[in-house]
Amino acid sequence: MSAFVQEPSTSTDRADLLALLDARPPGHSLPGPCYTSPRVFDLDVEAVWARTWIFAVTEAEVREPGDFVTVDIGRYSVIVLRDDDEVVRALHNVCRHRGSRVLTERAGSVGNIVCGYHQWTYATDGSLLRAGDQRPGFDTSCFGLRPVHVRVVAGLVYLCLAEDPPADFDEVVATITPYLLPHQLHRTKVAAQLDLVEDANWKLVMENNRECYHCEAGHPELIRTFFPTYGYAEDEIPARLRPAHERYLRAEADLQASCTLRGMPHAAVEELDTRTSGFRVQREALDGAGESYTLDGTAASRRLLGDLDSPRLGRLSLHNQPNAWFHFLADHAVTFAALPLAADRTLVRTTWLVHEDAEEGVDYDPDALTHVWRRTNEQDATLCARAQQGVGSPAYRPGPYAPSEYQVDALVRWYVARVREHLA
Amino acid sequence: MSAFVQEPSTSTDRADLLALLDARPPGHSLPGPCYTSPRVFDLDVEAVWARTWIFAVTEAEVREPGDFVTVDIGRYSVIVLRDDDEVVRALHNVCRHRGSRVLTERAGSVGNIVCGYHQWTYATDGSLLRAGDQRPGFDTSCFGLRPVHVRVVAGLVYLCLAEDPPADFDEVVATITPYLLPHQLHRTKVAAQLDLVEDANWKLVMENNRECYHCEAGHPELIRTFFPTYGYAEDEIPARLRPAHERYLRAEADLQASCTLRGMPHAAVEELDTRTSGFRVQREALDGAGESYTLDGTAASRRLLGDLDSPRLGRLSLHNQPNAWFHFLADHAVTFAALPLAADRTLVRTTWLVHEDAEEGVDYDPDALTHVWRRTNEQDATLCARAQQGVGSPAYRPGPYAPSEYQVDALVRWYVARVREHLA
Amino acid sequence: MSAFVQEPSTSTDRADLLALLDARPPGHSLPGPCYTSPRVFDLDVEAVWARTWIFAVTEAEVREPGDFVTVDIGRYSVIVLRDDDEVVRALHNVCRHRGSRVLTERAGSVGNIVCGYHQWTYATDGSLLRAGDQRPGFDTSCFGLRPVHVRVVAGLVYLCLAEDPPADFDEVVATITPYLLPHQLHRTKVAAQLDLVEDANWKLVMENNRECYHCEAGHPELIRTFFPTYGYAEDEIPARLRPAHERYLRAEADLQASCTLRGMPHAAVEELDTRTSGFRVQREALDGAGESYTLDGTAASRRLLGDLDSPRLGRLSLHNQPNAWFHFLADHAVTFAALPLAADRTLVRTTWLVHEDAEEGVDYDPDALTHVWRRTNEQDATLCARAQQGVGSPAYRPGPYAPSEYQVDALVRWYVARVREHLA
Repeated sequence: MSAFVQEPSTSTDRADLLALLDARPPGHSLPGPCYTSPRVFDLDVEAVWARTWIFAVTEAEVREPGDFVTVDIGRYSVIVLRDDDEVVRALHNVCRHRGSRVLTERAGSVGNIVCGYHQWTYATDGSLLRAGDQRPGFDTSCFGLRPVHVRVVAGLVYLCLAEDPPADFDEVVATITPYLLPHQLHRTKVAAQLDLVEDANWKLVMENNRECYHCEAGHPELIRTFFPTYGYAEDEIPARLRPAHERYLRAEADLQASCTLRGMPHAAVEELDTRTSGFRVQREALDGAGESYTLDGTAASRRLLGDLDSPRLGRLSLHNQPNAWFHFLADHAVTFAALPLAADRTLVRTTWLVHEDAEEGVDYDPDALTHVWRRTNEQDATLCARAQQGVGSPAYRPGPYAPSEYQVDALVRWYVARVREHLA
Repeated sequence: MSAFVQEPSTSTDRADLLALLDARPPGHSLPGPCYTSPRVFDLDVEAVWARTWIFAVTEAEVREPGDFVTVDIGRYSVIVLRDDDEVVRALHNVCRHRGSRVLTERAGSVGNIVCGYHQWTYATDGSLLRAGDQRPGFDTSCFGLRPVHVRVVAGLVYLCLAEDPPADFDEVVATITPYLLPHQLHRTKVAAQLDLVEDANWKLVMENNRECYHCEAGHPELIRTFFPTYGYAEDEIPARLRPAHERYLRAEADLQASCTLRGMPHAAVEELDTRTSGFRVQREALDGAGESYTLDGTAASRRLLGDLDSPRLGRLSLHNQPNAWFHFLADHAVTFAALPLAADRTLVRTTWLVHEDAEEGVDYDPDALTHVWRRTNEQDATLCARAQQGVGSPAYRPGPYAPSEYQVDALVRWYVARVREHLA
Repeated sequence: MSAFVQEPSTSTDRADLLALLDARPPGHSLPGPCYTSPRVFDLDVEAVWARTWIFAVTEAEVREPGDFVTVDIGRYSVIVLRDDDEVVRALHNVCRHRGSRVLTERAGSVGNIVCGYHQWTYATDGSLLRAGDQRPGFDTSCFGLRPVHVRVVAGLVYLCLAEDPPADFDEVVATITPYLLPHQLHRTKVAAQLDLVEDANWKLVMENNRECYHCEAGHPELIRTFFPTYGYAEDEIPARLRPAHERYLRAEADLQASCTLRGMPHAAVEELDTRTSGFRVQREALDGAGESYTLDGTAASRRLLGDLDSPRLGRLSLHNQPNAWFHFLADHAVTFAALPLAADRTLVRTTWLVHEDAEEGVDYDPDALTHVWRRTNEQDATLCARAQQGVGSPAYRPGPYAPSEYQVDALVRWYVARVREHLA
């Protein structure tokens, strides 16, 4: 393949990357270039980001016809919008005339989609309506904005840049939807949103998310409610965490009773590296008051989501490979999308959702609502940046994941499988 | 060729670029990597910028012996100066000792040319006068600053970095000189100059200049005097532009009578892609008062250029491939040089010239003189940056030029021919 | 070798670099890509920086157990610290868990070395003490911080990143130690330190240091005491420098008598390109009062180093290939380490040492102590940056070193030999 194509892998690049992956000892972190090389980054976009389902935005961000959000994935730019028929669509943000970026704002609302360069005008479904002055015979039907696959899952909007998206996503949707439904995300609004650019490769950002080995020292606010036993097998819990584990067991028993009473699913389903659309879902108890991600664990919004009748429903946790994690609580939801910008830069977009009828200043205080995860995100950004610095040294050697980091290992195995599948 | 030489094309690079160009459908924009790849950029410098005539500065910028301007073209730096015999010369701005940049200012005046590192001292013709303390036998005649071909055309200074410049430039000079002479550029001075770095590939900057399809929406100040029918064939003018076209026809009739009376050539000569030194020249009428690029079209300088006896002589328009465009009016001239800095950055230098005897504050107000093109340049910079963003997406596909963009297509054809010729 | 390994030379890169070096005319500067190409930079790190002894810090910076300094060499990061047994050690600053940078500060003091990510805890000798919660059977002895060779030479700390450091360093140490001992560097403290990032390749920074051809015009403060005849052969001294040379001869006679009286070695030993651990050492007289690098040459610190009994002992000059130069005076010492950051960026760290008992404000004024070399460093940074700009032009051609630049030529020959040796 040409060295100049915009998915620029060469056969040498591909062979080199496969050799690197083959050399990785099982259970160890990846070789350095997987985290630092711009050429591996380009291959990652090709093999992972342009082929799998990516969580991009929440339905609450595109509530009305014409509402749009632009999302950058590597060098791709995608418009996610609600069309005039109220269908959520995704379109490549590239004019069919001479390639100009069509919409330059992060988000907004439009009637038609008008390119600012030569005023080519597209309907909200992407079809070309007008292209200025063309010779007779110019066929507008050939020049609609190129579509991107989109899937709305109980209020979460996923994209797939591939022509043929992974078919197994249907099964994942079927599995996770019952967990999500009680939170009624389509009846939420955005209470706050935070874009944080981390100076780290997307895999380091995601690895950091997939373990809580670093939480005790790294996240003092988070572990007020998040049990630091996360990821440990029952028989491996260290002595110092035994008291927390006892609290966890009691809280879990309460939560399960509460879920059973309400017919809400809660058991873990974990298919992180056993399918293309890797995921994990589980409802788990919180520490402290057990209601929400606040310093004492009490709810941050008085207006509960959907028709929930109790603030004490723990956290519904959802992980999607390669780029997302979520916490759905009784009083609010918080979504996280990691989006790759360059080999050493990743955008993490955090969105806090509350009930669409919750009133700011009355039902919730945005500062209190967002405090724990703002602090946690900042702490993670610092940790990921130092990880990026470290793996750049030629002296770095892949090291062993600890037992409680088994989900990190699953992420890496999933990544390796995607690359091998693509390069085969 | 070595991957390390400073013109770094490899045989793979060359083959890849030719394949890209072969794949371009006629009448369509170029494939994405032609606008974004640093390796294509290096090939562009090799094939285009180091081989063709480049407009660099005006004679008014180097009026006195010792006056110099430094001009960067890609990674080249060139000193343009008037030597002690009043000849305009161009020299590579690289010391023959250990390669230091010799002159670091944008412009200035020197007696001799002295390198600031070890004080090697060159005459204004580039010959080495003194090189500090050398062994007997050191031959200064071997170490003059390397010359660059230079050609002064009726007050415009062109450079060619090639050893053998394109010979057809003589014919171009012979054709355009009669158009230029009435403006007597050698009797002008610089009233204002603006350096604008646009975040776009040089080809996108030039493509933007070669059409006015974007003017109606994009340049409200410019189209007060510039007819937005520019580029349209007579039978393709859209209905909404018919009134403007009627005004254009009347103004053109007046202009042609006026030119004929004065023996000034005005007809279009268009050889944009049919020769190495591609160009286009034509005198055309302006809208409004028809005199100058002001909001109402009246002259911006009361002192007309040369010995002109009327302010109403329209605009003499000159285009040179690959990097320049000009407007010569009765009251002032404005020159534009696009100079490539990197794959995604281009310097656009705009220079406003008035009669050497015109007095600032009396005959002209610099703000009024420069208002329209300052605004137009800023608008173009925004448009070119969004074009650059768009073509970087892997989803970009070359799109069709509109009929009124025929000069854009000519530019691209000229570019493709230069690259093919060089790589043959 | 894989294009992705973190020492990323390919066989093509290697062949290309060798061809470039073969094409260099003797006595001339290097071809442009040697100064500008990121790929040559990576090869330089491999062939030179990861294989030879590098001056990094002074012992005065790590006086107490637990004191550390972090040093970046290309993409390497190294911790230099004094361990609990008072031994100076060097360790790769890369956690053995998942590669995080362990210590992120420039300098400080620690009890144990604790990685901030997952709290892996290492002793000051690098051995792993604790690694959080691991399965039984996890062997801490396999996961100590990887050691770097370190050698303390009369108070100067040198590192070598290679597994097998060049053996000839023993001879160099034996030669230079008697010159250094009278200054008793282990009994000094840091009076001031300056980090200056120069916009130039490390070789241009070092070439600039290896000649004083540029001093007369470039360093007005320095040449108050530094004889500008430096580097000239006796019979090549130009007429204008004869008066300075006469002063030099008188001052040298005094200095030699003074050294002989005290049994201090002073003669030049110059093995700049005849061994792997290239060096040069000599004690030479200073101009003016002859004592120190001040504007009038009088001492800057009243408390002399070690047990020296006279302030007038000239400058002991030491050069080490590839990255260091030093001036040891009676009243203070100043060390310079050049450390490569990128193809066009180099850190120059300057450290001024005074007697450990000297009192700031009483015995010395830091501004007066550092004035000459602060100014000189700034001047050199400007000169090196314009050299870097110049050699980036495709029009640059290697030029001849002047006779007084023979040490520059020696540096370049040494560099070429290291690269050839490595690539053989």
